[in-house]
Amino acid sequence: MTATDDLLGNAAQYARDFTAGDLPLPPKLRVAVVACMDARLNVYGVLGLTEGDAHVIRNAGGAVTDDEIRSLAISQRLLGTREIILIHHTDCGMLTFTDEAFKAQIAAETGIRPPWAVETFTSLEDDVRQSIARITASPFIPHKDSVRGFVYSVEKGTLTEVR
Amino acid sequence: MTATDDLLGNAAQYARDFTAGDLPLPPKLRVAVVACMDARLNVYGVLGLTEGDAHVIRNAGGAVTDDEIRSLAISQRLLGTREIILIHHTDCGMLTFTDEAFKAQIAAETGIRPPWAVETFTSLEDDVRQSIARITASPFIPHKDSVRGFVYSVEKGTLTEVR
Repeated sequence: MTATDDLLGNAAQYARDFTAGDLPLPPKLRVAVVACMDARLNVYGVLGLTEGDAHVIRNAGGAVTDDEIRSLAISQRLLGTREIILIHHTDCGMLTFTDEAFKAQIAAETGIRPPWAVETFTSLEDDVRQSIARITASPFIPHKDSVRGFVYSVEKGTLTEVR
Repeated sequence: MTATDDLLGNAAQYARDFTAGDLPLPPKLRVAVVACMDARLNVYGVLGLTEGDAHVIRNAGGAVTDDEIRSLAISQRLLGTREIILIHHTDCGMLTFTDEAFKAQIAAETGIRPPWAVETFTSLEDDVRQSIARITASPFIPHKDSVRGFVYSVEKGTLTEVR
């Protein structure tokens, strides 16, 4: 049994209890969240989201790269979202290494240096501000009146806004 | 009051009830999930995940682009995950338009054609297989023994494996 097999057992239970089969495609709250992939950051739990409420976009660090711009453009232009919430978190892995070291490690093992930025950072707050700035600077995202960024504390469970 | 303000109220309640402040950084189940951002797809709910269990990576369509390869490379190489679960879902927005139409609409409005692929698709199952193939083909992801793809039914709450 793999961990995946165990999770499929949970999924079967979820399906048995499922009652939300008639929700519309556009998110009810008109919100898109961009958050780190970290296992300790339960976005539905923290924000009290339920099925149908909000788009949830996640990656290593909660970075805003072309793929998040793509997702946010689709979210706003085709599916009606109007607010964006960015979430980074304390004890993030992206604080513990550098782009250069990670690329060098991969190049040493595989012979190929990744062509993409690794998106490591040294300050949570500065990277939240930078992520907001990338959204604000994008010509592809039409609605920027409510783009707010936060740091989630994995120790305390709190969300603190970055100004 | 914005929707964001309402969600911050939920976050305050989550923090008051929070008891999981001592979890380690590496995901307990050694699993990374790549899923669509769709509001109806509650990844923690469907898979029965709890805080600390698994990395969750999400974007429009659950596509595997360079940013997901980046996140999966970090997940496996630095944080010890070994299995990957891909989740697309029925009634996906990415089935309802084309790359060309979306890019033309943005170009007409902004004067700038997005340089990235929009990652629309016409078959859920084929795109799941293609996403698995992108992971399998990547030199940057070391562990590929368990890369499994699924279609989630937003109508029934079920998860069906794509073979």
